[in-house]
Amino acid sequence: MPITLTFIPALLLILLAAAGGRLLSLKLDQPEILGELIFGIILGNIIVLAPGAQDPVSDVARIGILLLLFLTGLDLDFERFKESTIPASGVAFGGIALPFGLGYFLGTTFGFNNIESLFIGASLVATSVGITASILQETGTLQTDLGALIIDSAIIDDVIGVIMMTTIFGLATTGTFQIANTLYLIIFSILFFILSLTIGIKAIKELAKRIQIEKENLLLGGLVILLAFAMITEQMGLAGVIGAFVAGLVTGQTGYSRQLSKSVSLIGRGFFIPIFFVTVGMKFDLGSFTSIGLFAIILAVLGIGGKILGSGLAAKISNFTNKESIATGVAMVPRAEVALIIAHFGVRNDVFGSEILSAIVLLVLISTLITPPLLWRVLKES
Amino acid sequence: MPITLTFIPALLLILLAAAGGRLLSLKLDQPEILGELIFGIILGNIIVLAPGAQDPVSDVARIGILLLLFLTGLDLDFERFKESTIPASGVAFGGIALPFGLGYFLGTTFGFNNIESLFIGASLVATSVGITASILQETGTLQTDLGALIIDSAIIDDVIGVIMMTTIFGLATTGTFQIANTLYLIIFSILFFILSLTIGIKAIKELAKRIQIEKENLLLGGLVILLAFAMITEQMGLAGVIGAFVAGLVTGQTGYSRQLSKSVSLIGRGFFIPIFFVTVGMKFDLGSFTSIGLFAIILAVLGIGGKILGSGLAAKISNFTNKESIATGVAMVPRAEVALIIAHFGVRNDVFGSEILSAIVLLVLISTLITPPLLWRVLKES
Repeated sequence: MPITLTFIPALLLILLAAAGGRLLSLKLDQPEILGELIFGIILGNIIVLAPGAQDPVSDVARIGILLLLFLTGLDLDFERFKESTIPASGVAFGGIALPFGLGYFLGTTFGFNNIESLFIGASLVATSVGITASILQETGTLQTDLGALIIDSAIIDDVIGVIMMTTIFGLATTGTFQIANTLYLIIFSILFFILSLTIGIKAIKELAKRIQIEKENLLLGGLVILLAFAMITEQMGLAGVIGAFVAGLVTGQTGYSRQLSKSVSLIGRGFFIPIFFVTVGMKFDLGSFTSIGLFAIILAVLGIGGKILGSGLAAKISNFTNKESIATGVAMVPRAEVALIIAHFGVRNDVFGSEILSAIVLLVLISTLITPPLLWRVLKES
Repeated sequence: MPITLTFIPALLLILLAAAGGRLLSLKLDQPEILGELIFGIILGNIIVLAPGAQDPVSDVARIGILLLLFLTGLDLDFERFKESTIPASGVAFGGIALPFGLGYFLGTTFGFNNIESLFIGASLVATSVGITASILQETGTLQTDLGALIIDSAIIDDVIGVIMMTTIFGLATTGTFQIANTLYLIIFSILFFILSLTIGIKAIKELAKRIQIEKENLLLGGLVILLAFAMITEQMGLAGVIGAFVAGLVTGQTGYSRQLSKSVSLIGRGFFIPIFFVTVGMKFDLGSFTSIGLFAIILAVLGIGGKILGSGLAAKISNFTNKESIATGVAMVPRAEVALIIAHFGVRNDVFGSEILSAIVLLVLISTLITPPLLWRVLKES
C-alpha cells in the first residue's frame, strides 16, 4: 500500500532519491538524470504523491522545468548558433520528420487515438542538449565543427518539439484541428521570437547597463524576467517552457550572463531540476508498463533508429563524410528534458495516461544509456 | 475586488514586489526586509492568495522560513558563541521576561483570550539577529565585545522565542496546560539539542570527511540535512524552524560551512526568503488594522520599551557601563524573522486572526525603522 505524504517529508524523500540517483550515476559514469529517473521509479513504487492540485511538490517541479529551459537559453552561444543555423536546420529537420512520423504511426498501430499518437510522435522529436553536450565533451567532439552542428541541431529540435507539444495540445483542447488556431499559434510564436530577440534583447541590455546588481539580487531579477516570459507565453496559449527558453536567450546577451548562469545552475541543479526528474520517474507505472511493454520497446527502437537515420541522412546531404554523418545521427539519439516535459505535460492535462509516460521514460533511459558506447565505437572506427 | 491568482502569476508578482521593496530599502538605506514588507502590504491589497492548502505559494514561503533559520545556524560562530553564553543569557533573559510579560498583559487587557495573549507576548521575545547584526556593522560595533554580547543574546532569544511558540501552540491544541506535555517538549528539546550538537556534529563531520562534493551537490546535501532535521522536530511536536536552526549549527561545524552558506544564502535571499517576507506583508489587513490601531501602537511601544529596559538592566547587572547598557538595550529592539514566523504560524494554524498578525507586522516595521537613528545617538553621546 503506497503512503501519501505532506510537503516537507515528500520533499525530503525526493531530494534523498535525487542524491542517491546522482551517486549511482557517478559510480556508473552516466549522466545525473539517469540515476535520478531510476531512483524516482523506485521511490514512486513506495510512496505516492496526491494527484493534480493536491500534489504538494508539483509546483516546485514546474519551476524546475522552467529553470531547465532558462539555463539552456542562457548558456547558448547565440552568435555562433546563428552562423550554423542552415546546416543545423537540415540535420534537425531530418531528425524530427522521421522519428515523428514513426512515432505517430506506431501510436495509431497500437490503437492510441489521434491526439495521443501525435504526442507520441512529438516525444521522439527533441534531442537532449544537456546529455548530448556532455557526451560530446567526453569524446572530445564538442569543440569541433561537427560538435557545433550537433548541438545547434539539438537546440533547434528542442524548440520545435516544444512548439509541437503546444500546437497538439491546442488541437486536443479545441477538439478538432482548427487551422485558424494553429495559424495564430505559429504567427504568435514567430512574432514572440522576433520581438524578444530584437526589442527584448535591446531593452534588457539597456536595463542591465543602468543597474548594478549581483548575487541574490541578480538571481531575483533573472527569475522575474523568466517568470514574466513564461507567463506571457502561457497566456498566449504557448507553453511556459518556450517563454523560459527565450528569457534565457535574451538575458544571455547581457554582461550578466555568466554570473546569472552560475546562480541559476546552482539553484536549478541543486534543488528544482532534480525534483522534476525524480517526480517524473515516480510517475513511471510498473503495473501499466507490463501491459504495454512491447509498445514501449518498439517506441525506443524507432526513436533511436529514426534519429540515426533521419539526422544522419540529412548530415550526409549537407556534405559531411559517412563517418561524420553516422556520428551525427548517433549523437542526436539521447532524449531527455523535452521528452519528459511532454510526458509530464500530457499526464498533467489528462491528454494521455501513465502508460505513454512510462514508455517515454523508458525511451529516455535506453537512449541515454546506449549513446556513449555507440558514439565511441563510431568515432574510433576509421 | 481582489484578484485570485495561480502559481506562476502569483510568484511573478511576489518576486516583483520583493524587487521593488529592495530598491526602496536601498534608496532609504534600510534593511531589505522593510521594503519587502511594505511592498507586500501594498500587493496584499491588490491581489489575494487563496487561503490554507489552496494557497499556491505558501509551501514555497515555508521553505523560505526554514532557509532563514538554517542560515542563522550556519553562519553562527559556534565557538565564540559558547564563550559568551553566560552574560548573553542574562541580557537575553531580561529582554525576554519584560516584553513577554508586557505583551501578555496588553493582550488580556484588550480582551484577547489566554492563548492569543501568550502568543502576543511571545512575538515580542525575539530580537532579529540579521537586522541587529547589520545595524551593528554600520555603527562599527559588531567586532567589539559589546557587539558579541548583543548578537549572542539575540540568538538566544530567537531560540527561546521559537520554543515558546511551540510550547504555547501545544497548549492551544491540547486545550489546557498539560504539565506532562510541556515537560515532554522541554525534555525532548534539550535532548535534541544535546544529541545534535554531539553525535550529530560528529556524524556529519565524519561524513563530510569521507565525501568530496561541491556546488549543486553540496547544496542538495545541505538541503537534505535541513529537511531531515525540520521533519524530526515537526514529528516530535516542536517547530520545523528549530530543526532548521540546529541543522545549520551542525553543518556549520564542517569544512563545507562557508561554501554551503554562500549557496544557501543565494537560493534563500535570491528566491525563497523574500517570498516569505512579501507574503507575510500581504496578510497585513488594513481593514482590521483600523479597528485595532490603538492596540497595535501600544504593542509597538511596549515591545520597544520592554527590550530597552529589560536587556539594558540585565547588561547593567553584568557590569557593563551605563552607556553600554543603554546601547545594548537599544540594539536589541529590532524584531523581524521570528516575530513574523510566529505571526505566520498563528494565522496558519487558526490560533489567531489577521488583526494580531497586522499588529506584529507594524511592530516589525517600527522597531526596525527607529533602531538605527536611536543607536547612533546613544553611541555618539559620551
